[in-house]
Amino acid sequence: MPTTQIHAALPGRSLRAGSAKTSPVRDLLALTERPEVISFAGGLPAPELFDLEGIRTSYDAVLGSPAVLQYSTSEGNAVLREEVARQYTAAGLPTEASDLIITTGSQQGLGLLATALLDPGDTIFVEEPCYLAALQTFALAGARVIGVPYLDDVLDLDALESLARQHAPKFFYTVPTFQNPTGRTHDLEARERIADAARRHGFRIIEDEPYRQLRYSGDELPSIAAFAPEHVLSLGSFSKVIAPGLRIGWVRTTADIQPTVTIAKQAADLHTSTIDQAAAAHYLTSGRAGAALDRIRAAYSERRNAMLDALPTALPSGSTWNRPDGGMFVWARLPEGMDATAALSAVLSHDVAYVPGAPFFAGPPDERTLRLSFTTYAPDRIRTGLSRLGAAWSATGSVKA
Amino acid sequence: MPTTQIHAALPGRSLRAGSAKTSPVRDLLALTERPEVISFAGGLPAPELFDLEGIRTSYDAVLGSPAVLQYSTSEGNAVLREEVARQYTAAGLPTEASDLIITTGSQQGLGLLATALLDPGDTIFVEEPCYLAALQTFALAGARVIGVPYLDDVLDLDALESLARQHAPKFFYTVPTFQNPTGRTHDLEARERIADAARRHGFRIIEDEPYRQLRYSGDELPSIAAFAPEHVLSLGSFSKVIAPGLRIGWVRTTADIQPTVTIAKQAADLHTSTIDQAAAAHYLTSGRAGAALDRIRAAYSERRNAMLDALPTALPSGSTWNRPDGGMFVWARLPEGMDATAALSAVLSHDVAYVPGAPFFAGPPDERTLRLSFTTYAPDRIRTGLSRLGAAWSATGSVKA
Repeated sequence: MPTTQIHAALPGRSLRAGSAKTSPVRDLLALTERPEVISFAGGLPAPELFDLEGIRTSYDAVLGSPAVLQYSTSEGNAVLREEVARQYTAAGLPTEASDLIITTGSQQGLGLLATALLDPGDTIFVEEPCYLAALQTFALAGARVIGVPYLDDVLDLDALESLARQHAPKFFYTVPTFQNPTGRTHDLEARERIADAARRHGFRIIEDEPYRQLRYSGDELPSIAAFAPEHVLSLGSFSKVIAPGLRIGWVRTTADIQPTVTIAKQAADLHTSTIDQAAAAHYLTSGRAGAALDRIRAAYSERRNAMLDALPTALPSGSTWNRPDGGMFVWARLPEGMDATAALSAVLSHDVAYVPGAPFFAGPPDERTLRLSFTTYAPDRIRTGLSRLGAAWSATGSVKA
Repeated sequence: MPTTQIHAALPGRSLRAGSAKTSPVRDLLALTERPEVISFAGGLPAPELFDLEGIRTSYDAVLGSPAVLQYSTSEGNAVLREEVARQYTAAGLPTEASDLIITTGSQQGLGLLATALLDPGDTIFVEEPCYLAALQTFALAGARVIGVPYLDDVLDLDALESLARQHAPKFFYTVPTFQNPTGRTHDLEARERIADAARRHGFRIIEDEPYRQLRYSGDELPSIAAFAPEHVLSLGSFSKVIAPGLRIGWVRTTADIQPTVTIAKQAADLHTSTIDQAAAAHYLTSGRAGAALDRIRAAYSERRNAMLDALPTALPSGSTWNRPDGGMFVWARLPEGMDATAALSAVLSHDVAYVPGAPFFAGPPDERTLRLSFTTYAPDRIRTGLSRLGAAWSATGSVKA
């Protein structure tokens, strides 16, 4: 057989894996782990606000029966799905338990939808800037990712229209409420117009809502799904409401794609932890969850206010930032000529940290932007950290505020 | 803009998702859920053998600190990785904690390796027949899957050689010990020859070992990784040793692919449940795990023996089956002219069930084969079920044993 070829070298990683990079934010976070650093870089909830005792009680209750140690269905715990469906329906979006698939955090939901919907080379839209781990997931799926720009704090809906005409995307991925990294929220009109564009141009919407329940001011807004039910797949999570360590999220599917997402879930990990799902269902129906969420919201609201009050003296003169009604993040922009990535090492030497905005952009980044998280520390510590930040800018070679 | 095109229809699912089917075994299991059915179809561990009290104690212990409710690293709990590394090293395969990535069950490990290694159209090898959920994962990755046949109960190593020369596969996926669905084990010589073929032809091996610790007779065998450390990626799981509901497994990586698998894990679900990982680490270092595993092994060994003793009167005359040294499954073959799928509905009318072998084949199936699980029931119930099975064959139109 003269055509036989003997290979000696190991095959390399896949092309799609080669296109994804380890999260630059994670790499940066490694630099902020010195205990003396006050880090506004992370996106971590405040552990002292978790309802540890209530959660522990729920785990103990469900571990009274061996059923929670067994394999389970890929779709997920029935009581948990009923409870999530009830919450959607109460918020104005009629939902059945059968519309829901429980996932190992909403990050997994992103991966399942990528598997169900994307082939390599498909085009998708994201907000510019966008949640970093979503960009990573779409890169691993081999997608061509196009960012829809903002005009100041508002999505450029005319750009969405004209990009949709040009590119026929498979879907538009959006975090409509208190977005990561920007804290921005699409208002009612934007939600209607996004839904309308999806219907007219025949693309889907992936609406990722981890922060919706973290509202401290302003009125509740309807899901985009309410305006285009057949076009919208919604992702949710208990990471910000109960605790992230449980890794429980969900996909609210549409009928046409539900079987495909279920297959993707089976292939991904068979099912989410039976124990964690049962404990979450027990906790949510225990009557403790509402009070715990109120406590979290009250604390985060104070922390947001502390940050907004201190920012004028913490950022260089000429900086701008937004005032989010909820979530975990403030998005700021340094004056012309400054670079948030370049300035970070000097800032870190003052034992304070932020995340540069650049890695969150799918296309050419705005190097002046940065993200500040206000959830991790009590107000006093936030003020101390922002005072350090204010002192740090002179060391970056820029004029301090 | 005359080239503008308005799309009205929703985009469909991805091509790769279209190539994967919902698990036929899961569909069949739905038929066996009547409580009066004795089902040898499932692959479920016996819940009464779980160390419920020990596991509950470990959850309660780790839920004394809010740290387990927080986000964690993608690589996983440090104590848990140390413990798995210690177990590998003790079994003769030197392993560092840094070689390991904790996964949400070993099923996720399969998906991560598919992401890290496979692009659509890549060729891979599996055993023929093969673990069904692995076939599903490889189909979703767009792989071209080629089955390596067995000669009776032994892998056809000459066929492996000649197929490797022809196809240059990215990897060979194997469950070397007490395979699902066949209960087969590669002996020492086969392991050496598989490793040798990988080195000479330059393919990787994915060695999936969920059943290794479920040995009831015969001697321990070394991992294939011991013979070709740079070529072998190993998957492991606590599903059969602690309990499946925790969804904890791991990938033992090689240095060249570790960063890529870590990226795939980040994108898949950020990390595995912090709580479940901490509880597993606590449980494994509590000193209770060894006794629990001994109890599981003793019970499964009795159950295997009960099944093997009853099979001569439970299967039609002329049937053959193997006698596995461990695991959960016996693989049987009906006499010529019989079809295990066609016979199943008549068998189910006798309130007993098995899984036909056909869905486990990547290529043309052997319709005479079937899989029987012996772990779910106590010996008496196994005898009752197999007695029903013996009575069922006349109803299938075949001669009873």
